[in-house]
Amino acid sequence: MKTTSFVLRGDLAYSLSPTQWRTMSNGFLVCVDGRSAGVFEQLPERYDDLPLLDFSGKLIVPGLVDLHAHAPQYTYRALGMDLELLDWLSLHTFPAEARYADLNFAGAAYDRFVDDLRKSFTTRACLFATSHTDATLLLMEKLEESGLITYVGKVNMDRNCDSPAREENAVRSLQETVRWLDGCSSFRRTSPILTPRFIPSCTDELMEDLGALQRERKLPVQSHLSENQSEIEWVQQLCPWSKYYGDAYDHFGLFGGADCPTIMAHCVHSPEEEIALMKERGVFVAHCPESNANLASGVAPVRRFLEEGLRVGLGSDIAGGTQLSLFKAMALAVQVSKLRWRLVDQSLAPLTAAEVFWLGTVGGGSFFGQVGSFAPGYELDALVLDDTRLAGPHRHTVSERLEQMIYLSEDADLTAKFVAGRRLL
Amino acid sequence: MKTTSFVLRGDLAYSLSPTQWRTMSNGFLVCVDGRSAGVFEQLPERYDDLPLLDFSGKLIVPGLVDLHAHAPQYTYRALGMDLELLDWLSLHTFPAEARYADLNFAGAAYDRFVDDLRKSFTTRACLFATSHTDATLLLMEKLEESGLITYVGKVNMDRNCDSPAREENAVRSLQETVRWLDGCSSFRRTSPILTPRFIPSCTDELMEDLGALQRERKLPVQSHLSENQSEIEWVQQLCPWSKYYGDAYDHFGLFGGADCPTIMAHCVHSPEEEIALMKERGVFVAHCPESNANLASGVAPVRRFLEEGLRVGLGSDIAGGTQLSLFKAMALAVQVSKLRWRLVDQSLAPLTAAEVFWLGTVGGGSFFGQVGSFAPGYELDALVLDDTRLAGPHRHTVSERLEQMIYLSEDADLTAKFVAGRRLL
Repeated sequence: MKTTSFVLRGDLAYSLSPTQWRTMSNGFLVCVDGRSAGVFEQLPERYDDLPLLDFSGKLIVPGLVDLHAHAPQYTYRALGMDLELLDWLSLHTFPAEARYADLNFAGAAYDRFVDDLRKSFTTRACLFATSHTDATLLLMEKLEESGLITYVGKVNMDRNCDSPAREENAVRSLQETVRWLDGCSSFRRTSPILTPRFIPSCTDELMEDLGALQRERKLPVQSHLSENQSEIEWVQQLCPWSKYYGDAYDHFGLFGGADCPTIMAHCVHSPEEEIALMKERGVFVAHCPESNANLASGVAPVRRFLEEGLRVGLGSDIAGGTQLSLFKAMALAVQVSKLRWRLVDQSLAPLTAAEVFWLGTVGGGSFFGQVGSFAPGYELDALVLDDTRLAGPHRHTVSERLEQMIYLSEDADLTAKFVAGRRLL
Repeated sequence: MKTTSFVLRGDLAYSLSPTQWRTMSNGFLVCVDGRSAGVFEQLPERYDDLPLLDFSGKLIVPGLVDLHAHAPQYTYRALGMDLELLDWLSLHTFPAEARYADLNFAGAAYDRFVDDLRKSFTTRACLFATSHTDATLLLMEKLEESGLITYVGKVNMDRNCDSPAREENAVRSLQETVRWLDGCSSFRRTSPILTPRFIPSCTDELMEDLGALQRERKLPVQSHLSENQSEIEWVQQLCPWSKYYGDAYDHFGLFGGADCPTIMAHCVHSPEEEIALMKERGVFVAHCPESNANLASGVAPVRRFLEEGLRVGLGSDIAGGTQLSLFKAMALAVQVSKLRWRLVDQSLAPLTAAEVFWLGTVGGGSFFGQVGSFAPGYELDALVLDDTRLAGPHRHTVSERLEQMIYLSEDADLTAKFVAGRRLL
């Protein structure tokens, strides 16, 4: 199907606000030129000529957005999970990422990742590649072909890593970054995003250069922030002039603002000043609940971020997280928020199903523009879900079925998938 | 296949101890009369005449044991997860369980549950039914036909519940319990287990009667213990004479000992004296990590239980938990133990993959006898898992593949399933 104007019929659900979703049994979702023209209980006459795709009895929800994942780590997800962040990086991540210097290896690994991502609930994603320019371009080609809409970053890293995944020095890292940017200018759905791995991996010189490149080309930025206590202490040692971890990015002009859309993954241990600066600069938090449990990092105070009006979305954080499914990230976001509430701080109420659904759709989607909703004007990303295997003698409402999907969905439930009005599955 | 003597060939993995698993690539697992005769790198000649089932390239692990689940709650799992225990019980559980008075409803619901359990990684389970004798017998018939080996309890509950799921009074509850026990005496694989719902649901009179019945018939017992702070305070009000929650069960002779094998689910907030008595009496803890997150109960100190030498297994706790898969319970047991370590108590190290695998096999299996291992003499429960969908350009060891299965397995990976030497799938 190549047309980007059509009508979907089915049981619709999408977020109206961070705390409320709207459902419509047996409704119509109209897509005109790749964008939603709204949802309707009766199809308005003016849309009678559009092709109707009848998914009656199936759930139709906005596509899910993954704000943080490492594509090269997909093949070794769920390994080494008995380690903490810094050990896991040096024992598993860096040696494995070094192999992406080999394009044959990279091609095979990225084929698997892209194919699984295409078949997943994710319609848009912000991805880390490795430090290798050619392998990163290869990943971007495969993503471009997939029809998914993504930001992808060649990783910058020029210190504190014994593996050949590290770049030689700042000059070389910048040269390769420019070569990468020049190489990916023809993609339509696959955009570059500056990706200093994290402060411990980047010399001040490299960060200076990346800051200048960002200002020159107005590129978005992604990195990691305040994930783990040892990491935070390390940043303080490496950048003794910084007031807090986020300030180290800000010092180089890589921490949000109008011309520098920025995603920071984790923010588990962000101090007050850091949260205030993120709010001021519109920095997106990529909340990665599974990774933060797997690496024993803790639980980010997402309720606090929402109350402050920060921008927040969800990340799978493959392979700190093992699960590509953003529905699983939603379920775990609720679960760990309950444990945080119980064990640490009863002033921050647990997240609700409606809130995590919002985070996984509109919350992350807004990094991509008007994305994550079926409200008129939003780009039409949609998933059609067949949940008949969950039907039982109880009759469930559309709202109940959506709650069940958050906890129980499997990739095989995905019947059709649309990204910006284009059908991928 | 009806013979209970055969040889399985494949990549074997099973627990040697609570902290160590053993793997063997391309090995032989010999089953003689329903029990393991051991694992071998070369098949001994004396077994040459046994039928060989060649699962080369697939993982073969012991069947998983679910020490705690509520069969009638399966159809509404993953609903109402924004509530805490006592509200969730009165708003969701009790009204839903009341419907099992209708045998047509019960039949349809239990068909779904038993069929899904049969296709799951679970080979043995300890299940709560409802208070309805006939529906409980119906569930047991279906389980008996399935080939799974289970304990099933008709629930006793005669107070603190507005729904008709509650029984009229202690006398009636006991009469029905005797009728139920008489009705299930012909099952071979499906055994009764006394099931007072929990102290708040049972009058002292009923508990007295159940204690007498237990002593008369030497029945095993299952119930809930120290799951939630409000519940614990309520027990103290209801049984002001009790020293702690577990003491309330013990007062009636329903808390372990040689003639009274007992499983207590949760034990999230057990005080020192309770832990000591559980150890003394050999009470099994059913650790239910997902349920304890979903209902915001907390995280049980499983490391402490293991150090003390308590008996511990895993429970899905459907539908406080949403996931039937015990592999998912293993993964979450690791994850929440890391959060507990990070957020509460760094004196209790996180659980490892090897430890949770032990909990889900030998730990729970020992409630059923010599179950959960491939060591010689153990009943032969085995799962054959096809993990080729996870194969990538990295070559993984059998040990790594088992770790991946803990996090990434899906029901569809299950290729064959054996319970006590009998093939079910």
